[in-house]
Formats: sequence, C-alpha cells, structure tokens
Amino acid sequence: MQTWEHLNPFTDLALEATAAARGDARTEIPGVTMREERYEHATVSWVEVLDQVGEQMIGKPIGNYVTIDAPELRRRNRDLQEQVGKVLVEQLDKLLDLKENDTVLVVGLGNWKATPDALGPRVTGKLLVTRHLRDYVPADVAGGLRAVAAIAPGVLGITGIETAEVIHGIVERINPAVVICIDALAARSVERIGTTIQIADTGIQPGGGIGNKRQALNKQSLGVPVIAIGVPTVVHAATIVQDAFEAMAGSFANTKPFFDLFRSPESRRQLLNEVLSPTVGELVVTPKEIDDLTEDMAKLIAGSLNAVLHTSVTAQDLLRHIN
Amino acid sequence: MQTWEHLNPFTDLALEATAAARGDARTEIPGVTMREERYEHATVSWVEVLDQVGEQMIGKPIGNYVTIDAPELRRRNRDLQEQVGKVLVEQLDKLLDLKENDTVLVVGLGNWKATPDALGPRVTGKLLVTRHLRDYVPADVAGGLRAVAAIAPGVLGITGIETAEVIHGIVERINPAVVICIDALAARSVERIGTTIQIADTGIQPGGGIGNKRQALNKQSLGVPVIAIGVPTVVHAATIVQDAFEAMAGSFANTKPFFDLFRSPESRRQLLNEVLSPTVGELVVTPKEIDDLTEDMAKLIAGSLNAVLHTSVTAQDLLRHIN
Amino acid sequence: MQTWEHLNPFTDLALEATAAARGDARTEIPGVTMREERYEHATVSWVEVLDQVGEQMIGKPIGNYVTIDAPELRRRNRDLQEQVGKVLVEQLDKLLDLKENDTVLVVGLGNWKATPDALGPRVTGKLLVTRHLRDYVPADVAGGLRAVAAIAPGVLGITGIETAEVIHGIVERINPAVVICIDALAARSVERIGTTIQIADTGIQPGGGIGNKRQALNKQSLGVPVIAIGVPTVVHAATIVQDAFEAMAGSFANTKPFFDLFRSPESRRQLLNEVLSPTVGELVVTPKEIDDLTEDMAKLIAGSLNAVLHTSVTAQDLLRHIN
Amino acid sequence: MQTWEHLNPFTDLALEATAAARGDARTEIPGVTMREERYEHATVSWVEVLDQVGEQMIGKPIGNYVTIDAPELRRRNRDLQEQVGKVLVEQLDKLLDLKENDTVLVVGLGNWKATPDALGPRVTGKLLVTRHLRDYVPADVAGGLRAVAAIAPGVLGITGIETAEVIHGIVERINPAVVICIDALAARSVERIGTTIQIADTGIQPGGGIGNKRQALNKQSLGVPVIAIGVPTVVHAATIVQDAFEAMAGSFANTKPFFDLFRSPESRRQLLNEVLSPTVGELVVTPKEIDDLTEDMAKLIAGSLNAVLHTSVTAQDLLRHIN
Repeated sequence: MQTWEHLNPFTDLALEATAAARGDARTEIPGVTMREERYEHATVSWVEVLDQVGEQMIGKPIGNYVTIDAPELRRRNRDLQEQVGKVLVEQLDKLLDLKENDTVLVVGLGNWKATPDALGPRVTGKLLVTRHLRDYVPADVAGGLRAVAAIAPGVLGITGIETAEVIHGIVERINPAVVICIDALAARSVERIGTTIQIADTGIQPGGGIGNKRQALNKQSLGVPVIAIGVPTVVHAATIVQDAFEAMAGSFANTKPFFDLFRSPESRRQLLNEVLSPTVGELVVTPKEIDDLTEDMAKLIAGSLNAVLHTSVTAQDLLRHIN
Repeated sequence: MQTWEHLNPFTDLALEATAAARGDARTEIPGVTMREERYEHATVSWVEVLDQVGEQMIGKPIGNYVTIDAPELRRRNRDLQEQVGKVLVEQLDKLLDLKENDTVLVVGLGNWKATPDALGPRVTGKLLVTRHLRDYVPADVAGGLRAVAAIAPGVLGITGIETAEVIHGIVERINPAVVICIDALAARSVERIGTTIQIADTGIQPGGGIGNKRQALNKQSLGVPVIAIGVPTVVHAATIVQDAFEAMAGSFANTKPFFDLFRSPESRRQLLNEVLSPTVGELVVTPKEIDDLTEDMAKLIAGSLNAVLHTSVTAQDLLRHIN
Repeated sequence: MQTWEHLNPFTDLALEATAAARGDARTEIPGVTMREERYEHATVSWVEVLDQVGEQMIGKPIGNYVTIDAPELRRRNRDLQEQVGKVLVEQLDKLLDLKENDTVLVVGLGNWKATPDALGPRVTGKLLVTRHLRDYVPADVAGGLRAVAAIAPGVLGITGIETAEVIHGIVERINPAVVICIDALAARSVERIGTTIQIADTGIQPGGGIGNKRQALNKQSLGVPVIAIGVPTVVHAATIVQDAFEAMAGSFANTKPFFDLFRSPESRRQLLNEVLSPTVGELVVTPKEIDDLTEDMAKLIAGSLNAVLHTSVTAQDLLRHIN
Repeated sequence: MQTWEHLNPFTDLALEATAAARGDARTEIPGVTMREERYEHATVSWVEVLDQVGEQMIGKPIGNYVTIDAPELRRRNRDLQEQVGKVLVEQLDKLLDLKENDTVLVVGLGNWKATPDALGPRVTGKLLVTRHLRDYVPADVAGGLRAVAAIAPGVLGITGIETAEVIHGIVERINPAVVICIDALAARSVERIGTTIQIADTGIQPGGGIGNKRQALNKQSLGVPVIAIGVPTVVHAATIVQDAFEAMAGSFANTKPFFDLFRSPESRRQLLNEVLSPTVGELVVTPKEIDDLTEDMAKLIAGSLNAVLHTSVTAQDLLRHIN
C-alpha cells in the first residue's frame, strides 16, 4: 500500500530495515542473522535473510546483503575512495565466482537525466567494456580481459519498455554467467547518502528505491545469478517527518494524553497520514552536492568492477585507470 | 541566525512571507499592501513593501513583488506555457522602462551543474544575445534588436569570486540601463515548485534562496535598476517537518498539556530544534521531475525576455523561436 | 575495402550516390529511378533502387529513399523548421501504414556523448513514449495515443553488445508493427550537414555512416518493416581532399602530362592514397555549430514522429508540444 | 586576411609556425631561437621570439613558448598522464614566480557547449578554488592553500560581452599576481590533437585558434603577467587539403608544366583558393574521440595547476585528488 510504504520509514537497505525491526531493544529477528566487521575507514555488515519469516520481518527477500559504510566518503578524499574501493573489490570477489571465459553483463539502472537516479548509467559509462574486442584484437591482447558487456536501458517512463523486457532479451543472446545491476537507492538516514554501498545476491526491483514496482531482475526471472550493487542517493521526505515525530514522541513520553495518542506505531502512522500533504508523500530529499557524490561513487564502483572483472590487471592500476 | 532561518518556514516569495505574517486571521500587515488579479490560467499578485515596518513584518526589502501563479504548468502543456509567457511579458513590460538604445544585462545566477540551482544559467543560455552584433551586422538588420548581454557567472564555491564582484565589473564596462537577474528560489509550499514566478524590483541576494548571504545585487550596489526574476525549485526539509507539526498542533488544539507545550511559535520552534537532526536543516526537498520543470521554466522566461527586450519582433514569434 | 570506401567519396545518401554515379553527363543509371518535387522551402527527391544492378551502380540496397533538402534550415528559423516538419510528416505518412493498435518501436542509434553521433539518442529523448501508459491511465485517455516505445541502445564500443542483438530481443518481446531507426549520417557535401533528411524503407547499418559495418537492422533481420531516418552531421576529411583534387583536375584538363596522370578515377584514387596520411582517412569534418544543428534536427524529427504516430493530436500541436 | 589565414596552414602553435618557416631546409629563422629536450614519454621544446623580425617570420608575438609533446597520450594511459602532468608542473613552476599571499586568476576560455572548444571551461571546473575560503575556514587550514579564483566567462557569441571586458573587471577587483588562461587551439598536424600542450608567457587572443580576433589578454592589456596554456583540439580542413597538395606537388616535382604551376607557394595558394569551396574554409577537423581526449587533457592540466598553485600539497596527491 502506497501510504504504508511511505509512512513505514522506507529504506532499500536491508541493514536499516533490520535495525528498524530490532528497535531500540536490539532484539534478535527470527529468520535474520546479522554480523559486522570494522575496517580502518569502513564498516562492513552482513545481513542474511534465512527464510520467509525473515522476509516478512524486514521486508527484504531471502538472500545475502553486504553493506559497506564509510561516512568519511563525504570528504571526497581520493585515497579514502581507493581504500573503500579495495574493500568493495574484496566483497565482490567473494560473491562472484567467475571462470576464465565467462561473460558478465553489467546493467546500469535508472535515469541518467535525473542526478539522484543516474548512478547506474554513470557506472556503465566508466566500465572497461570488452565483449566485442575478442573479434577485433589478437587473442594474446584480449587474453586477460574477461568478456564484459554493459548497458543502461533507461527507465520505463522514457522508453515505454520494462527494463526487465530489455534485459531478458540481451541475456538470452549473450548468455552471461552473471548479471550485475547498479541502482540508486533510498535510505532511511540522510547520513547514508553517498557513503554506503549495498551488495545483494538477491537481484533488485528496478526503481524500487523510488517506490515503484517493476518486474524483478533476479535469478528466478533471468535464469542466472544477479548481483545488485546500490548506493543511497535519496531519503523520502515522509521519512524525515516521521523521524521528527518519533523524536518528539520520545520527548513527550511522560505527557499522558499525548502519550496515549502516540502510543502505537499505527496511531502515529495515522497521525502522519492526517498531517502530511499528499504531495509530500511523493517527494525525496537529497543533498545539494548530490552530483559530486554520485560521480564519486560511480567512479569508485566502476573502478572496483574493472578490477574484479579484469583480473589480469591489478586492481590498483584499474582503480586509477578509471580515474 | 541560521537556526531561526530554517525553522521560521523559509521562503524567498514575498507572497508566502506576507501570507505567513497575516496568519489564518488574514489580518492586515502594517507597511505592506497586497492585491491580486485572476487570469484564465494564472493568478497575478502584487505585494508592495512600503516601509521599514513592512520590511520587518515579512522580512523582505522595500519594493514591489509581482507573483504569477499557474499550478497547471505542472502539466507541461505547451499552449499553457505560452499563455503564462504572455502574462509574464505583460508584467515585465510594466516594470521595465527601456529606451531605444538602452543596453540590458541579464545575469543567470546559480550553478548549472546542480539542477535545482540551474535555472539562471539555463535562461541566459536561451536568450537572443545581441550586444556584440552591432559591430558585425548592417545597421538595418541590427536595428530592431536592443543591445542584450547575458552572463552566468557561476557560484562562489566554484569560482572563488563573489558574483557581485563579477557583475560590478561588467556593469562598469557595458553600462546597462537595467540589470535583470534570474535565480532559483526556495518556497514554503511544495506546490509552488515550477509553477510560480516572482518578479521583484528590489534586486536579490545571490544564493539567498538556499540560505547563504552574499553581497546584494540591487540599485544601491550596482547604480542601475535591478529586476529579479525567480522560480521556486526547492523547499527546505525543515519547512516540511514544521508544516507537519503545525498541522498536528491544530489537531491537538483541545489537548490541554499538549496545547501548552505548543502554544507559542517560539516553543514550537524550540521543539523542532530538539527533534531535527542538524543534517536535515541543510537539506532541500525537490520533486523528481525537477529537471523537466526547470527546463520548461527556463524556456518560458527566456522566451518572454526575448519578446520584451526585442520589441521589433512580436512576442509570439520569439516565444516560439526560443523553443 | 576501407581505402576504397574512403576514396570513393563516401556518402550515406542515396541521392548523392546516384548523382555521383550519373556524373556531369547526368546519364540514366540502370536499375535506379529518380524524381524530385519542389516545395516552398524544401526539395523532396525520390530515389528507387529497383534491382541488383542498381544496387551495384550506387552501392545502396534495393528500396526507396526519400530525401528532404532544406538549405535554409541553417538559419535556424522556427517557422521554417515547422514547415519542413510538415513535409517530413507528409512523407512519413506515406511510408508508414499503421493500424489503430499497432505498437511502434523507435531506435535512436549512435553515441549520445559524441555530438555528431548523438542525433538518434536526442530524438528518442524527445518522443512522446506511450506503450507503458495503457496499464496506468484510463482507456479514454490512452485512447488516441498509439503504443510507442523508444530506446537508445548505445554503440558497440561502449556496450560490448551489437545494437542488433539488443533490438532483436526487444522486438521479440514487444512485437512492434514497424521499427523506426534514427541515425546520424555522413554526406559527400558539407552543405547538407543539418539541412538534409533521408527516409529509407531499407533499414540501416548502425554506424554505417562512420564507415563501420554492423549487423543490419532491416526487414530480413528483424522480421518487421524498418524505416530509417537519417541526417548528415559529418563529411569525411578524405572527401573534402578528393573534391579539391577533382576541381583541380578540371582546371588542368588541358595540361597533357598532368592530364595523363589524372585521367582515370583509379589513378586519382591511387594518387590520393599516396598523399593522404592514414590518420586523415579516419577523420570527419563537422561545422562548429553542430551541437545546435543536431538539436534543431532532433526536435524537428521527434516533433514530426509524435505527429505521425499520435494521430489523435494534430501535427501542429505536437510539433509545438515537443518544443 | 581571412583567405591567407586559412591557406597559410594555420596553427596556434609557435613550434609548428617555426617549423613551417624553417621549411625542409631547416634554416635558422632571424629573431627566433629554438631548442628541445627529450623526456621518457614527452619532448619539450622552447621557442623564443626575440624581436619584431621574429614576430613577422612566424606570426607569433615576442615571448617564450614551451611545447610539451607526448604522442602516447592518445593511448589514454593513466600513468603516462601523470608523468606528462609532472613535466607540465615542472615547466609551469619555471614560468610562474608566486609569493605566499599572491592571488591567481585562472580563466577558462571557450564554449563549454562545443566539445572541441570546451577545454578551458572543463579545466576551471576541476580546479581547487580557494580564494573565498579564507573568510570561512580557520587560518591554519587555509594556510597552505594559495588564493585561487577561476572563471569561464563564455564566448562573445553567447554573452554579447568581449571576454576581455569581463576579465578586466575581475582583475581590477581581485588584483591577481598572475592570470592563467586555458584555451583550445588549432594545430597544423592532426597528430597533435590531444597530445600537445603549449605554455606561453605572451597571453592569448581568445578564440584566436578558431580564426576570430578579440581584444588581447596579455600583460599590456591586463597589467599583470598572463600565462597561456593551450592544447590543439582541431585542424582547419583547408590545412588538410593543402598538406595533400604539398605532398602531391612533391611527387610531381619532375613534371615540368605541373611544376611550373606549382612552383611558388603563392601559386599553390591561388590554386587552393580556386578549388576550395568557401564553406570548407570555415570548417575544422576533429577526431571522433575528441570528447575523451579533451576530458583527459582537462584533468591533466587542472591536476597540474592544483599541484603548482597549492604547494602545501604534493603534486602527486593533487594530481590524484583531481581524478
């Protein structure tokens, strides 16, 4: 339900959804396991949704979700970006199990004309695409380079074609061993915009981050593993209002009549429905520097993918090449 | 004061500031007059700030503010855009008093790389610029065209130079009879994004809409009349939260203890300060279709300016030429 | 053969190829018919390649080629653009035979990042795409709008996927009644850049204009009629050199030894091979204002397609809507 | 004279102009000295125009011209780019003599909307601009950073204001110790596009590379030293035709009547005038990958300037930061 979707603080991040479900008490969630590891400049968390109980608890499909959180990325420091890039390379290496001659299809989801939605197309635009080279260059040259194809199919609103329809056709023809989808996400917390990367082996819902529903891109639908890489670029306006309400509810905990009105999440939700103008429900919040943050993240992800996919070249070289 | 600025629902529109000051009681504001006229697809309002009392009441400098409000512009219908363009032409004609050989300088404020801030540069990019032609084309050809110059000086953050420093130097050299500044604004109401145009004879504060303070561009500083044309492209996130609070305060009017806590605007403001994360205070809300809305408005304003400034050509021709 | 391709003044326009084959004597070409009609601001020519003899004579596949030539478009006058748009609408109406419920797929070929190659993507970006709306809007609203889908698949060099591979997959899924491809072309004459439109019922070779060979997009390969709309945006540097040589050859017609050396086209070609640096063979010539010319043409073609495809709206309305 | 300008193979590079004047005989040029030094991946040449005799011989004003030539840059290798960046840093360090508190103004000339002319604006867009920070950040932070301002004033055709008018006004206000202008150039040789950098202490003629004349930006006009950094992005079409003619003239050296006709440069020029269509004279040739080449060069130059101007940070760090 649209309203619910907006008022239940919406997030594409399994990590945030789990934290929300656990609440302040940080109770365990049935069907969901979670652990984290600290790096010098980043924290890596693993959320695994084990079964349908877990699915319902946090509203994310069964599978593994790796979250890399590096708040310092906001400082736009190049060395830090490379460090986080290496962490991303490490995590992708674990998730991807590629053979010498495998073909990889990278899909840049989203609309390149709308900055907060342009992450995917920007990443594909920076990839070392090689699938076509084998016919053009001598074997020894092409040797080290894995066959990588990349496409940014655009969004339904500007093509009139479901992204899944476009991708299915390409997958049938080029038979990739794995599909890697890049998409912009919606987070619950503003601080995560441009600082968090989620990698999931569950595939994704194109545009899901912005609340639309589309045909899924996942192993069931495409017949090959689908890895999703996403970065939060927006927060729903309704989320921000609700957070303010929750904070206020706290500060009034001892005010009896108020407390009654605010006791259940449901009653708070109802209140929000009354006070939120419908237009606001549609709005997203994004920081002014979103263009730079998206560009940085696109470089970081493209550089890491180049390093993971083209193993004959060192990660470092490629991370720098792409820049 | 920053906090105040954010929590007092911020708006660049004199019309919204006046309405806020008048409150639900719609009392008269000393030092401020206001009237409006309905057109088929637009409402035109005139707010005049008469004196310093008025300045303090609504927080806008002494002068005239014309607001054209056309909610249907959201539908992106070309004919409607032309109709509103004609209303804008009519209002600009009243404000501008140009002689045959006057030079006009149009300044596109804002950062073309950040969509919600790109209105100004997009307008200057669509203008019929003619000042340089007189040296190149035969007099009879140049005849009808007034000398129009246009520049988008960029923002302090990317040039290191105050916009006013750049504009002063140009004004000294080309001696315009009037300077017309185009800027993106912040509104209080989301509905006004891409649907409202404000024309003011008071000049503007570059970036004022986003809360920064810069040297003014006005008659005092430049020595020539400065007309400001602005369109809301963002709303402060804090404004949305506060609106939700105000709505809630209403629905609790009869809840005694709550009411006490909420009685004075000051106490509400204090509450907001407590519940709003500092990051949120910096954030702006903008609709997903902002790129198209800004482009439409840039065409509408550029076309209208071309019509007003180059009187030898009919408004209609130019409105269509620019498109 | 690459060399031949460059030295035989290369053109994507059947009209230029025919003229070249006819030579100054303007002899008839076996297997090729040609006629033209003058409009106020444009000349429309029809070249029909009847058989394989004709194919070999002018190097274009069997089929019909309509060329609209409007030199004044260089003046960038909006009214003229609309007039030429109407001529284009008229010609497209003759070539397209669409039923009420037909789906149409428009393919924008080329690389949006390289201005002279960006025509296709720019056109698809301006189309009224409607195929997806039928599921979202009430029947009566969607009624008049034909199901139009549009995609700009990118070029092999940046996707690693043959354009034909992408398009085949989409055609299988959405079953269009016709595919319309938009592409930038190479002309022999500089004057045709941004002033000529070719419509062909033979489909096209993606990138053919730039000399590359790709899998064809035509009725044989896609199983549905393919209409190609192209506009010259470049001329090969070698063409310009050769034209200069031909002009010189003329002025030396009476200089015996020189004449001997230049007698046969073959000997001229050989000479060019000797004097042209290999790099030059790769280069294209394009005017400085190519960005504006491409944008104008993209608007003109998109507006005309909107008018032809969405017959419930008048051509004029849509031509203006798109602008 | 326009014609001469086009037929005398036009170049903005003093190095090419000198080579042309020296001819195959490589004779000394009165009033001009020239020397070169080889680096691993680049050749650095110094041309000094000593007096008015030298000015007339090569058509470049009195002063020093440093040319860095690195053909491998076409390979777009990141490490090579850094190596050339270091050579550029070294040469700029010699030319610039900056004190601790000097302010530096960088001017990005050209039109950002036309790729081959967009080098300047792209460089300024990547600079670490700091002049405004001193008022905002603590002294110790701002400490190491020199006051750098940067502006891309646009071109006369889109602003109606001479670039020099804009720059004069800014120079008066911010009193820079030196002005550094970045501009795209026209070369004689296609191979130099995107592979050669010229640094001159003579300032430049905005748009000079494209054949237009503008008010100069140099020490005489601005009152402060003006360093010009330029990179060839185009070659005039007429140059390519003439080169082909010269090559041909060679191969016919022994053909008496032909030789007569071709003997003098003047007669060749006359011939070219006859055979070149006027439109061709206006055209420039540019490689298809010009967008990438310009972007690479913009990064290289911006990174080098950041390294030279902000000496508290190591060149290497900044070269990498900018990327």
